[in-house]
Amino acid sequence: MNRIKELFGIKYPIIQGGMIWCSGWELASAVSNAGGLGLIGSGSMYPEVLREHIKKCKKATDKPFGVNIPLIYPNIEKHIQIIIDEGVKIVFSSAGNPNKYTSYLQENGIIVVHVIANTNFALKSVDAGVNAIVAEGFEAGGHNGKDEITTMCLIPKITDEVNIPIIAAGGIGDGRAMLAAMCLGADGVQIGSRFAVCKESSAHENFKNYVFDAKDGATDLTLKEITAVRLLKNKFYQNIQEAYTAKATIKELKDLLGRGRAKKGMFEGNLTEGELEIGQVSSMINKMQTSKEIIDEIIDDFNIAKSDLHTFNV
Amino acid sequence: MNRIKELFGIKYPIIQGGMIWCSGWELASAVSNAGGLGLIGSGSMYPEVLREHIKKCKKATDKPFGVNIPLIYPNIEKHIQIIIDEGVKIVFSSAGNPNKYTSYLQENGIIVVHVIANTNFALKSVDAGVNAIVAEGFEAGGHNGKDEITTMCLIPKITDEVNIPIIAAGGIGDGRAMLAAMCLGADGVQIGSRFAVCKESSAHENFKNYVFDAKDGATDLTLKEITAVRLLKNKFYQNIQEAYTAKATIKELKDLLGRGRAKKGMFEGNLTEGELEIGQVSSMINKMQTSKEIIDEIIDDFNIAKSDLHTFNV
Repeated sequence: MNRIKELFGIKYPIIQGGMIWCSGWELASAVSNAGGLGLIGSGSMYPEVLREHIKKCKKATDKPFGVNIPLIYPNIEKHIQIIIDEGVKIVFSSAGNPNKYTSYLQENGIIVVHVIANTNFALKSVDAGVNAIVAEGFEAGGHNGKDEITTMCLIPKITDEVNIPIIAAGGIGDGRAMLAAMCLGADGVQIGSRFAVCKESSAHENFKNYVFDAKDGATDLTLKEITAVRLLKNKFYQNIQEAYTAKATIKELKDLLGRGRAKKGMFEGNLTEGELEIGQVSSMINKMQTSKEIIDEIIDDFNIAKSDLHTFNV
Repeated sequence: MNRIKELFGIKYPIIQGGMIWCSGWELASAVSNAGGLGLIGSGSMYPEVLREHIKKCKKATDKPFGVNIPLIYPNIEKHIQIIIDEGVKIVFSSAGNPNKYTSYLQENGIIVVHVIANTNFALKSVDAGVNAIVAEGFEAGGHNGKDEITTMCLIPKITDEVNIPIIAAGGIGDGRAMLAAMCLGADGVQIGSRFAVCKESSAHENFKNYVFDAKDGATDLTLKEITAVRLLKNKFYQNIQEAYTAKATIKELKDLLGRGRAKKGMFEGNLTEGELEIGQVSSMINKMQTSKEIIDEIIDDFNIAKSDLHTFNV
């Protein structure tokens, strides 16, 4: 028995992170077809674009899939209406108050999972009645919590605090890390970085290749005054760091960030001027694979690591 | 077979971190007597004080113990001579170049372990011929690496890069985390925070009680321009943050830090003006225990978590 497999009706307790400019219908359906749970990342989509992705995803898979919605998104209510209209059954919400839409979504037959990064929001999510939580550590790519709690510290802490199913996220890229996360108390894992650069990700090839070349120390959590985000170091990142050195104000940082930087970097492949979001685990990702190859490899490595465990003689 | 147990001749692959103002002979000998490896933290000791602690430790235990030496310490050569003169058999070096003293120590019959926080220094340590490495993640307390790589990302990466034994450190406070670290590839674990506030730690009771009350998000890695250090948030920490907000220069930060802050906080128990070093895992430490109680509990929980693993059905 595994609570995450049961909750979603999936073969493996592996969730693909909803990621702007990476996870459209093609990635989400490929992950779901491979036995995981695919998520359409709606954060980079206009409402009608989201509707199109949902329609295509339904055609591409008969397996469960979901939509990730950042609650701070300006068109959030339109997104939610489209999700309900199109009969989506699973929503992962993030970046906001889980109290606001959880009941409404559930009344419409939707399973709701909220992403948290500390105990306080885990307890708020339980109060809001969510069906499960994603506990995301500091090492995760993209937008991140301000407390900087790592996966190794976050998962056992949250396990001790809540009784609902927990999906561990942040730093999980292979079967060893999946097993470790489950030792810490997680029921399943959410994997972002590895799927962000796989074959079915809609990210630009330049971005994928840049990630394959990344070494450890290649990312940094920056822009904490605006909204903390883990980025690959590139020219754009260096400009941010120079602004910090020059004691930039928040307004100057916002101006520097501007608009459309993530699209420019991850979708259009501009490696110098674009914002490149990825997790620390990128240092261990070095080849192009399909979603199915990734999932099969993770499950194989998980089982190898699990059978190695009996040799741990302490 | 376990490489760390064999290397040191100890019962459990649990190393107590060498911690200034916490780990004198009393803590080190208690941990060694309980089946782990105790370390005297020499970073806060004058040479003759170190000699005294080594002498007392030898009297208090017939089990293996070691000394931790920060290589940037001004009296480092005097420390090394005392370690050799007193017949210490195990040295953990940190904060410096492992090339400088490893051979010399080994020629004097000493097992040398170096603390690293990224791949680059792991490979340098292998080149220097160290017997093992401690791979320490971002979540660890006290002084820390600049790349901010978390334990979850660091351990599998280093496991793939080196063949010598690996001791995982950072975020490890219980049996679940110990098992997780070993799933990631570690041969053993180093635990700091939990021993920093145990009965035999020489830290002040005020500090220990403050740690027992700490929630998640209570620590932060700060002073990165001088030397990155993870601190509990208190008045002194708030002063540092205010200095940052006021765009303080490095000299101003150094003046604010001053001298003796760690002693004032951890040893003298001044919770407002002192520097309080502890790891993120402090949010899960909430009671006073002896070293032996801690080690026995970790091993019990490790074995429970390990036997639960066969129920992980993915």
